[in-house]
Amino acid sequence: MLKTSVAYTEIRKVKGDNIVPAEDVLAAEEPLEIRLEYNSGAGPLQKSVSITMRTPGNDMELATGFLFSEGIITSAGDIANIRHLNYGCQEGNGDNIIIAELAEGIVPDIQKLERHFYTTSSCGVCGKASIGAIRTITNKLSGPDELRVLATLLYSLPDKLRNSQDIFGDTGGLHASAIFDLGGNLLILREDVGRHNALDKVLGYLLSNGVKDIDNQILLLSGRASFELIQKAAMAGIKVVAAVGAPSSLAVQLAKEFDITLLGFLRDQRFNIYSGAQRIIV
Amino acid sequence: MLKTSVAYTEIRKVKGDNIVPAEDVLAAEEPLEIRLEYNSGAGPLQKSVSITMRTPGNDMELATGFLFSEGIITSAGDIANIRHLNYGCQEGNGDNIIIAELAEGIVPDIQKLERHFYTTSSCGVCGKASIGAIRTITNKLSGPDELRVLATLLYSLPDKLRNSQDIFGDTGGLHASAIFDLGGNLLILREDVGRHNALDKVLGYLLSNGVKDIDNQILLLSGRASFELIQKAAMAGIKVVAAVGAPSSLAVQLAKEFDITLLGFLRDQRFNIYSGAQRIIV
Repeated sequence: MLKTSVAYTEIRKVKGDNIVPAEDVLAAEEPLEIRLEYNSGAGPLQKSVSITMRTPGNDMELATGFLFSEGIITSAGDIANIRHLNYGCQEGNGDNIIIAELAEGIVPDIQKLERHFYTTSSCGVCGKASIGAIRTITNKLSGPDELRVLATLLYSLPDKLRNSQDIFGDTGGLHASAIFDLGGNLLILREDVGRHNALDKVLGYLLSNGVKDIDNQILLLSGRASFELIQKAAMAGIKVVAAVGAPSSLAVQLAKEFDITLLGFLRDQRFNIYSGAQRIIV
Repeated sequence: MLKTSVAYTEIRKVKGDNIVPAEDVLAAEEPLEIRLEYNSGAGPLQKSVSITMRTPGNDMELATGFLFSEGIITSAGDIANIRHLNYGCQEGNGDNIIIAELAEGIVPDIQKLERHFYTTSSCGVCGKASIGAIRTITNKLSGPDELRVLATLLYSLPDKLRNSQDIFGDTGGLHASAIFDLGGNLLILREDVGRHNALDKVLGYLLSNGVKDIDNQILLLSGRASFELIQKAAMAGIKVVAAVGAPSSLAVQLAKEFDITLLGFLRDQRFNIYSGAQRIIV
């Protein structure tokens, strides 16, 4: 647990008709601006592409995963250097801007980028159009696969997730995303006040550490499955997504379009299968 | 419960070593684009100011609440007319654009608006700057107040909220925001896949129906309290915010700045007081 991921505060605990002073641990929430730096031909340029409210810690993973899941980079090698600006707008509040310097020859199409952000950071005005946009940019969605997952293995995952959620244990206030292998081993877990950030951190870790085999692994989400999370999973080529909470209608629609196995309400030895049932062995 | 707020889907329910087909109800998630229409002096203009993933239903409340909590309008009278465009990008997927026509003489400062969105829809790069921006635009934060709330009354609220959450009962997939009076009566409840949308719907309802006395009422949030939710509560002049889940660090900081009473983990006859303890009677 990184020190900056939590904040301490004085509170009063009220229970029944008792009130006592106490110290409490909060999940930290601070904005992060992600900037691209690249050579446009007419010299180096910086372009701000996102501001998100995130839990500090693993910022480079977050930025790398975000740029990947938005289709701006296709591998960790597309980033030559990534660093914090240490913007001095408030004492102790630096480190809220991160600059990803693109590798030589990597020039984002800014006009396309702006159109793209207009459609995908908020999904466009119609799900169909946005789903079309993903189909255009993702190249991970190959043909038939042999991946099969045992229901008994899935039942064991939520407890493993919760037991490994360091910050949640302290604060009760964070979303988590985690990758498990087919033996039920936890490979990577990240937490954040924003559920999309937790997944971007996981994807950034996988990219930066050259982890392969993602299409033979399981993504577990601590809460609900929204459209945005399935969109990111599709970009990464993930085939099985299990959520402890409920999926939304658009999440199910997207999972079906991309033949992603989507499971919801995974808890207490049960779950629902919303799509891709052929991969689940009961 | 509006028909469009849910979607039906065929699933398989897995429990232990059983698998059975079933029909399931999903919380609907679709994008909503909010546009302003106004007379710039050189004729009528339309300007897109937001796209959000929301649960269809109460769209006009959502747009009204959003425009208010972002400081674009200050009363329901600033909107002359509000309507759906019925954009035909996909069959059955219309109603995803809403146009708020501003009253004569109401002209938003678009340059300021763009700067403002850059800072507040994502909170700026530093919490302090964003908190300053709210202070500039809100006028509801008056002096000392006499509001006092009994702990025993607070204990009763989460059950009332859950029992009134129509869509959550069906789908298990929605955030809720609700306003209670000091007698513990539920005045208004709204649900959405996005927690900020649920609150914007509540604020839009209050504005459109001329409900007063908000500084003598209690806002209850079904989940966690983020910066963005406290920001909206501050804009509306709400003095007491109780969350069933945890607050973030920046939510606590903002509540302290604006002397909002912020309670977290309100469940099982207990809660934590993060700020404004003077208003709570145990």
